[in-house]
Amino acid sequence: MIDSWLSIWVKTPVIFGVIALVIAAVFYFRVIGMEKGNETMERIAGYIREGAMAFLFTQYKTLAVFGAVVAVLIGISLGKVAAASFVLGAVLSLLAGFIGMKAATYANVKTTQAARSGIKANALVTALDGGAVMGLSVAGLGAIGLGVLYIVFRESELLSPILHSFAVGASSIALFARIGGGIYTKAADVGSDIAGKVIENIPEDDPRNPGVIADNVGDNVGDVAGMGADIYESMVAAIVAAMAIALTSDALPTLLEGDLEINKTVAIGLPLVLSGVGLAVSILCIFLARMMKNMDPAKVLRGALIMPPVILAIASFIIMNMLGITQSVTAVMTIGAIGGTIIGLITDYYTSAGPVSRIAEAARTGAGTNVIQGLAVGMESVAIPMIVVAAVAFLANKYLGLYGIALSAVGMLGGTAVVMTVDAYGPISDNAGGISEMSALGPEVRAITDELDMVGNTTAAIGKGYAIGSAILTVLALFSAYNIEINHVRALNGLGAVELVLTDPKILIGILLGSILPFLVGSSTMLAVGKAAGAIVVEIGRQFREIPGLMELKAEPEPKKIVDIATKAAMKEMIFPGCVAIVAPVLCGFFMGPASLAGLLAGSLAVGATMSLFMANAGGAWDNAKKYIEKGKLAGEKKGTDTHKAAVVGDMVGDPFKDTSGPGIAILIKVMSVVSLLIAPLIALL
Amino acid sequence: MIDSWLSIWVKTPVIFGVIALVIAAVFYFRVIGMEKGNETMERIAGYIREGAMAFLFTQYKTLAVFGAVVAVLIGISLGKVAAASFVLGAVLSLLAGFIGMKAATYANVKTTQAARSGIKANALVTALDGGAVMGLSVAGLGAIGLGVLYIVFRESELLSPILHSFAVGASSIALFARIGGGIYTKAADVGSDIAGKVIENIPEDDPRNPGVIADNVGDNVGDVAGMGADIYESMVAAIVAAMAIALTSDALPTLLEGDLEINKTVAIGLPLVLSGVGLAVSILCIFLARMMKNMDPAKVLRGALIMPPVILAIASFIIMNMLGITQSVTAVMTIGAIGGTIIGLITDYYTSAGPVSRIAEAARTGAGTNVIQGLAVGMESVAIPMIVVAAVAFLANKYLGLYGIALSAVGMLGGTAVVMTVDAYGPISDNAGGISEMSALGPEVRAITDELDMVGNTTAAIGKGYAIGSAILTVLALFSAYNIEINHVRALNGLGAVELVLTDPKILIGILLGSILPFLVGSSTMLAVGKAAGAIVVEIGRQFREIPGLMELKAEPEPKKIVDIATKAAMKEMIFPGCVAIVAPVLCGFFMGPASLAGLLAGSLAVGATMSLFMANAGGAWDNAKKYIEKGKLAGEKKGTDTHKAAVVGDMVGDPFKDTSGPGIAILIKVMSVVSLLIAPLIALL
Repeated sequence: MIDSWLSIWVKTPVIFGVIALVIAAVFYFRVIGMEKGNETMERIAGYIREGAMAFLFTQYKTLAVFGAVVAVLIGISLGKVAAASFVLGAVLSLLAGFIGMKAATYANVKTTQAARSGIKANALVTALDGGAVMGLSVAGLGAIGLGVLYIVFRESELLSPILHSFAVGASSIALFARIGGGIYTKAADVGSDIAGKVIENIPEDDPRNPGVIADNVGDNVGDVAGMGADIYESMVAAIVAAMAIALTSDALPTLLEGDLEINKTVAIGLPLVLSGVGLAVSILCIFLARMMKNMDPAKVLRGALIMPPVILAIASFIIMNMLGITQSVTAVMTIGAIGGTIIGLITDYYTSAGPVSRIAEAARTGAGTNVIQGLAVGMESVAIPMIVVAAVAFLANKYLGLYGIALSAVGMLGGTAVVMTVDAYGPISDNAGGISEMSALGPEVRAITDELDMVGNTTAAIGKGYAIGSAILTVLALFSAYNIEINHVRALNGLGAVELVLTDPKILIGILLGSILPFLVGSSTMLAVGKAAGAIVVEIGRQFREIPGLMELKAEPEPKKIVDIATKAAMKEMIFPGCVAIVAPVLCGFFMGPASLAGLLAGSLAVGATMSLFMANAGGAWDNAKKYIEKGKLAGEKKGTDTHKAAVVGDMVGDPFKDTSGPGIAILIKVMSVVSLLIAPLIALL
Repeated sequence: MIDSWLSIWVKTPVIFGVIALVIAAVFYFRVIGMEKGNETMERIAGYIREGAMAFLFTQYKTLAVFGAVVAVLIGISLGKVAAASFVLGAVLSLLAGFIGMKAATYANVKTTQAARSGIKANALVTALDGGAVMGLSVAGLGAIGLGVLYIVFRESELLSPILHSFAVGASSIALFARIGGGIYTKAADVGSDIAGKVIENIPEDDPRNPGVIADNVGDNVGDVAGMGADIYESMVAAIVAAMAIALTSDALPTLLEGDLEINKTVAIGLPLVLSGVGLAVSILCIFLARMMKNMDPAKVLRGALIMPPVILAIASFIIMNMLGITQSVTAVMTIGAIGGTIIGLITDYYTSAGPVSRIAEAARTGAGTNVIQGLAVGMESVAIPMIVVAAVAFLANKYLGLYGIALSAVGMLGGTAVVMTVDAYGPISDNAGGISEMSALGPEVRAITDELDMVGNTTAAIGKGYAIGSAILTVLALFSAYNIEINHVRALNGLGAVELVLTDPKILIGILLGSILPFLVGSSTMLAVGKAAGAIVVEIGRQFREIPGLMELKAEPEPKKIVDIATKAAMKEMIFPGCVAIVAPVLCGFFMGPASLAGLLAGSLAVGATMSLFMANAGGAWDNAKKYIEKGKLAGEKKGTDTHKAAVVGDMVGDPFKDTSGPGIAILIKVMSVVSLLIAPLIALL
């Protein structure tokens, strides 16, 4: 029974990965083949596409240098195969980003065009298909990459470093894509926003404002490419964490009765198999969502997000039963999925319900109280998600020990392809709205795109729940894997285990130092957005002064210059926070030893997990408080009143909070853990 | 030699404590006996004094209930003597607060009167004397309390719970005084500020504004009583942490050659002796500062702050030499003192130099960029102080192990009496300015009080450095003491040690939960300030509408009503954050066991240390950025311009950051550690 398992089931990730890519290709060409928009629409969409691609290629150049250096370092210290695996992990991430962004920057204008036909369902499906290209590419390439590596190297002694290197490749790209993309998108957003206030009569989304194109490019760069790399990394890291624990732990839970070696082999392969099955389930759910296209879009998206974990739990129950593996696996997967959903709903609550109306209310007494209220809401919003993660970890540990904690993250990420589809759907429908506005298509088109956009915003919260919850669980698992790896290597060298005693001054000092890092990343990314936004404001001002007739709509702005400024700033400013994440654990590990590095990870986990939740939720809440006022939901207030202006201040502060610094900090702690796991064998003997 | 040590030196804290109180009494009556101001001045000062005392007595009532409950619980679980010690620790704190506040609320108007004479030195000395009453009371009562307890119970088996209970008493009062005082002072400040904007033509510090008195009361309540309780607690906690480690550790460093028992006795008594010597040195420095009264006030205060640690190091060198105790003690004390000074200078840098001008500059493009810049500066400012604390802990541990870490905190707090003197000097001179403004005394008086006030603000940063640095070190030491105590109790009961292994899921879950707590305290205190400020704005508006002739200066406002609102709000809102700090470790300890509680402490330490630095420094920087613009240092800007208005928003956000939430979070982590140490024997066997 288990023999057939070993040979057949282990291929599921590759098989479904290939199927996912084929479907992605079909969707891609379906989107491309759809009806064209009018000339203005196509021109604007062309600018956005060009800008997005320009960003991507500039980023490739920067990352190539970084990647080459790291690859050489890995090659020297851990061997050529590990170096190649690092490159593979990185390249697959870039490839997914490229495909997804290409699809998204076609799907936006096609969605607008579909909305022009007046049939909401067509617009919805177009945006969904565009997003699904990204979702399926991300999950498919991740599954194929890890699946192939496992099949080829499963008998090899190098499996550990190969898997870790792959994860480091994925993480590094995610780090730079997320931070660089986050800086770009918010610099463009804040820059256009300020320009709209500083330069008379030019609202943020006016077609004469040369920053609008960059703003739309930013949505793709941040929320498609950046988010995609992030989610790809989450999936890879969760699987690798579980596999790493299975590979080296002496205290694996009994998954099935019988031979210990077989138990271990099953434990190593299981995370991959489950993610393969999760991918299959996700594909199914994407089609189900498409079939429901005539329903309320909010229900469609919400359903698409909640279904995969449920179906995956059922599938897991059947498969474990067939194979004689303990149903504790199903329990742990389910706990993870439920936990992720709860976190999502809590996120949704804090960024849409009562807290948002209180922030809007606070804007009545000015920007100061609005900001204070938003900060307080963000801080409060940290509590329940952290308690949920702790509860998931507690229960998962009860069932299957540390391995269970890692599997619960895999369970939470069971619907990766769908989560990414919905995440990419967001900027596509947002762009669709922007294009219809800039092309002056009239309110009935805008009504459709606005609804699609709004739905995307709220359902994104649920996706964020899975992302942040799984990130924390994955870091916990990686952290344990790091420790197990250290002591495994020491045992191989005849040395005693490193005792990670919490009161050891080395560990305490590590904790103090680790707690700084999220603040450094937060500070540098906040400043980066501010600086880049300032440069954009200056350039927009220059264009209005120097291009004759621009104000009177007689001349065209030069959006490429803005795109160029944002791109260059993002490239320059992502270096420091990116390097902090990678260099800090390496320096700490080599100079202060494995115990201090463990402390460093623990300190940055505690601060990073809470800070990223705080920043992301505060940002989301401010954003929605502003929209709440704009929609006239706050009695006596509307766009343009003093209260609204106060809310705009909160929204501006929230922009880098939610889309640059918050996600940057979340990825920081993941990258640090993955890098630590990779260098564990090198520092174990220090 | 060492026999005489035991009998004589151990009395130093009590002896110098009594001397300090006598000097405080002399200063007190000297201040009271000084020349009276005119009728308006005395009336305003009377309002402030009444309001401050009303707050104090209301707080006493609330705290009496709380204290009775906790005393009973301690009595039941740890015995009557421990309960009495808890009450003593609390009552001495309240007594110091009472004396200090009484002195401060006389010294303010006397300082104004002295300034009227035109001789700056007289005004300086009056404010200093008023502050010294608080400084000497705080340090004196703390030294006497701990000194007497030690002398009476040093042979008793109950010494540990008695000391821990005393510290819990001190911490509880500090917690509520700091949070309650912080809410009061910032609610009054923000409330008056908003009222000044909402109600036409009523600036923040206009005598017609009924919130002005409450604002001045708030300075006393927050920065005299609140800060005093905080510093008293810091001193007590640092000494108790060192004594606790000495009492139960099996791995004490060798302080002097010979008998192990004597070594232990010396280790237990040494922290007390050093604080007694520190007090003596502080008294000396206060007199030196008074003698320098004709010099530049900034130099006087700066010198007063930096001298004690230096002189204490020299004294320690001589004393250790005399007694044959290792000079490692002197080294550790010196390292602590230097570390504290560096942190102070860094704090000073981030809240006054380049970073402040950049925040002011950012206000040119609006409140949003001003807030973003301030948040970024605050985040960045976390790094160096944490690195310095880590370095101090590292070096102290090299010299004298965990005991050394605790001693380094004692060294950092060597000048407690002086630090508190300078801290209380601040609100006295601030009040003096307020009184001169409200009494319309003319610009030449205001010039003197303004200079004294400004100097107080900048030197306070150095004092804050000692406070925050020592807090983190103390928590590290308490944390170790907690673990030692747990395993000590287990050993007495024939049980093996609890291994606090970092990767134990219990500890990881504790870390996750612990990281929430600072955010909960931050959120609830931010909201409390917002809520109370809102109520004050409403009441100010009511007075202007309903008191005929108020606007035309023909009628008096009713400041007592504002004072009343602020007092009630502070009492009500301090309950939740206060209870979080005390209940969370108790619940975690009893329900999840000692390992999870250790994790809880570690998580809240990592987040709390960084968050409190971030909030305190961001708040200070915003405040000074606003003042920077008001002083005309930003080209083309001044009070009333749009840029200044944007800076006011940052200042308003910074108010609760720096004076309510930041300090509240700092004290949270101390209270949690002290409570954990107290309950350690009760949960050690769980």
